[in-house]
Amino acid sequence: MRNLGPVVFIVSAMFVLLSMFMTLPVLLLLSDPEGAPNAIAFAKSAAVVCTLGILGLASTYRQSGDLKPRYMFVLTVSSWFIIALFASLPFYLSGNNISAADAVFEGTSGITTTGATVLSGLDSMDRDLLLWRSILQWLGGIGIIGMFVAVLPFLRVGGMRLFATESSEWTEKGLPRMKTLSRGLLFVYLVFTIIAVVTYRLSGMSLFDAFNHALTSIATGGFSTSDQSMGKFSDLILMEATFFMILGSLPFFLFVRELHGQHGVLFRDKQVRLFLAILFTVPALLTLYRWWIAPGAFDPFHSYAATMFNVTSVVTTTGYASEDYSAWGPLAFVVFFFLMFVGGCSGSTAGGMKIFRFQLSLIILREQLMRLLHPRAVFTRNYNGRAVSDEIISSMIAYTFIFLLCLLIITVLLASLQLDFVTALSGALTSLTNVGPGLGDVIGPAGNFGSLPDAAKWILSVGMLMGRLEILSVVIVLSPAFWRH
Amino acid sequence: MRNLGPVVFIVSAMFVLLSMFMTLPVLLLLSDPEGAPNAIAFAKSAAVVCTLGILGLASTYRQSGDLKPRYMFVLTVSSWFIIALFASLPFYLSGNNISAADAVFEGTSGITTTGATVLSGLDSMDRDLLLWRSILQWLGGIGIIGMFVAVLPFLRVGGMRLFATESSEWTEKGLPRMKTLSRGLLFVYLVFTIIAVVTYRLSGMSLFDAFNHALTSIATGGFSTSDQSMGKFSDLILMEATFFMILGSLPFFLFVRELHGQHGVLFRDKQVRLFLAILFTVPALLTLYRWWIAPGAFDPFHSYAATMFNVTSVVTTTGYASEDYSAWGPLAFVVFFFLMFVGGCSGSTAGGMKIFRFQLSLIILREQLMRLLHPRAVFTRNYNGRAVSDEIISSMIAYTFIFLLCLLIITVLLASLQLDFVTALSGALTSLTNVGPGLGDVIGPAGNFGSLPDAAKWILSVGMLMGRLEILSVVIVLSPAFWRH
Repeated sequence: MRNLGPVVFIVSAMFVLLSMFMTLPVLLLLSDPEGAPNAIAFAKSAAVVCTLGILGLASTYRQSGDLKPRYMFVLTVSSWFIIALFASLPFYLSGNNISAADAVFEGTSGITTTGATVLSGLDSMDRDLLLWRSILQWLGGIGIIGMFVAVLPFLRVGGMRLFATESSEWTEKGLPRMKTLSRGLLFVYLVFTIIAVVTYRLSGMSLFDAFNHALTSIATGGFSTSDQSMGKFSDLILMEATFFMILGSLPFFLFVRELHGQHGVLFRDKQVRLFLAILFTVPALLTLYRWWIAPGAFDPFHSYAATMFNVTSVVTTTGYASEDYSAWGPLAFVVFFFLMFVGGCSGSTAGGMKIFRFQLSLIILREQLMRLLHPRAVFTRNYNGRAVSDEIISSMIAYTFIFLLCLLIITVLLASLQLDFVTALSGALTSLTNVGPGLGDVIGPAGNFGSLPDAAKWILSVGMLMGRLEILSVVIVLSPAFWRH
Repeated sequence: MRNLGPVVFIVSAMFVLLSMFMTLPVLLLLSDPEGAPNAIAFAKSAAVVCTLGILGLASTYRQSGDLKPRYMFVLTVSSWFIIALFASLPFYLSGNNISAADAVFEGTSGITTTGATVLSGLDSMDRDLLLWRSILQWLGGIGIIGMFVAVLPFLRVGGMRLFATESSEWTEKGLPRMKTLSRGLLFVYLVFTIIAVVTYRLSGMSLFDAFNHALTSIATGGFSTSDQSMGKFSDLILMEATFFMILGSLPFFLFVRELHGQHGVLFRDKQVRLFLAILFTVPALLTLYRWWIAPGAFDPFHSYAATMFNVTSVVTTTGYASEDYSAWGPLAFVVFFFLMFVGGCSGSTAGGMKIFRFQLSLIILREQLMRLLHPRAVFTRNYNGRAVSDEIISSMIAYTFIFLLCLLIITVLLASLQLDFVTALSGALTSLTNVGPGLGDVIGPAGNFGSLPDAAKWILSVGMLMGRLEILSVVIVLSPAFWRH
């Protein structure tokens, strides 16, 4: 572990890139000077980050070279943690009296595309800060897609190896393919974002709102420009947002393969099919339930659109809300709690436990039931036409176990800060799955994380980063055995 | 599946045995005539059950023979369901206006050693009914120990195969050993119960209370003779009860091996060690927390005794309470929620997910972390000195997955009956783990299941039976593939 040079080199390059994005909110001065009162704060932040980046690049440019898996862990984990920290600078330096804990929470919630917020009064908030929140989520979204393709399968983390050759190849021979794939992913991401901006604008949003919501929809981020989240927009816009959140939660490498002529791969994918099936059945059933318990005020179309929107927002781990869905009755409350676990497809911008892990568990369950009936039979498992090795299963169990363990630990820590059961449990869950809002009166869809004690904000920030990094990569870098060699 | 004769034969034999136990409460007439106003109800119930048993025996006695694994599933599942149903008869026939749903809930909660109750006014309840509740738990306790030794390991259910040769052998050669083991288990169970009766009596309980609480402590059942559960007893009695609940949650086959001269096997067992470690650390930490949040009213000794008692009651899935521990502050609430999952050791009277499953998960997690560090290394797993095959791991995953799936389904069903989040979730959990009380105002330690809608009582009754049967055995018998051949 002596030579961290290549790691420092890549993180420094990211810093330079980050500093360039930090200058974007300053550009508001050109079109909307009133909306950019924090230009100085952004300039200062960009200067700091850029200087650090250049220093880093300069001191390590001779050391760039091969990255062994061990270094890839360090790179992955340290880059997200450090960038989350520095991305919070503009909030901290702005003239809005945002504390360090609040700034880091907001920055982390941004870059991890969680969407939980400690800020209120968003409707009259400085627009450069709002824009920065959206940019962070957009960067986080493409960041996670890139990480899925370039890093995660090789780390053998949480069953991700299942996607190793499917999504990419990290060999000499695979490198040109890797470049094509990366360019394709970026292209798709950009095109989706532009379509979203145009669609939202044409449906009646202001250009500023359209731009911000486009960035945070495709990234399944969930930051909005209003304290009501998307509650003030029309049913049409809610349906469009639903569509864009779904786009953001599908495996992006499949879009690229579709572009390269492999038509139909998207809808033949088992992960995509179950994901869409959940999104079409659950809102329909919930709408029926809402009609059943409150038939008086029931408007079928609006009710279905709103249910679909809010369910999609939670399952895709976006975190928008159009109203307080936790007040839709006990069944809805419970359903939203369980939906928070699900998450989107692997290879997308979404968080959560991911559809394929549930499918692998189902495969094991079915195999086990068959084995009970036919003790001597031999079984082969496959998923999407690929064999599923015992190693992939073990790594999936390890992920699930440590996910639940982290959920327990964070819940206990939050409860020890005197947060109530629902707030502690749903807060821990929403941070680890990068959903955004929790449940209950405090941090529910109608609430805000601002009232939590600072310690809770720090804990949740770490939770969001761990969730985004599939947890195991963080645990491994923190383990003493990792540093011993 | 044509020949269910041997299954009917064994269930019928159990019926005859059950009817004999049903006459025990009638014996109260001899010593305490006032306490046995339902003698007729018990006589009727015994007559029905005995008649059915004799008819069953008579019609199948020529068919007794080998029980293939497939029939063992049917036997296991059907016997618990049917006995739970008929064990409820005395409640239903008693002069206390107990509805069918209430009677079945109480009977099921008894025989599964859950300890959740729909009855209130226990302090002035007919003593024959109270006695019947305790007897049911005691029978359920020895029933589950017997099932663990004789059936579960061979069903390859939930990783139980890990204990196959350790606890017993189901072969021609193993049969005499099996008989010795069964006799040993019954002996230990009886001796523990007698010691408990004497201890409780000497510490100030009435003979009736001592007898009932002895039966329900060793069985980790949790039915009490008072609406305050064990709240009216001294700290000394609480500590004694803690000790007996722990005894009931240890693997009984290890006691038998100790008796047969294998000294030290009990405390060398990994399951036992972690179980005891949890029981010594968690109450200590919780006591400190209680002191921290309410230093004024803090009495160290009483506080520790009560914390130890209530934590042990939940971890061992007994379900006694000495006070409303859900009011001990948010951290305690959360800790009790997570403790409900844990459960005791395999091979004991306790329910829950069982310690060894957490240990297997930890083994996988550690293996996985090592694999990330040393991708080419080869690993061997062992637990308590035995190799852990991939099959055992798969069967453990299958169990965990279906446990969580059932938790989800039951929670959703309860919420659809308009039970609130905490009641629905903790109710589902407490039934599947056979703990007893849930959390929250309705079914928490200070509450009662009586106010729930009938549908919820039926759902919870099924949940308790599924939990007791390690879930998978029920699922397999309900699967169409099982009956196809």
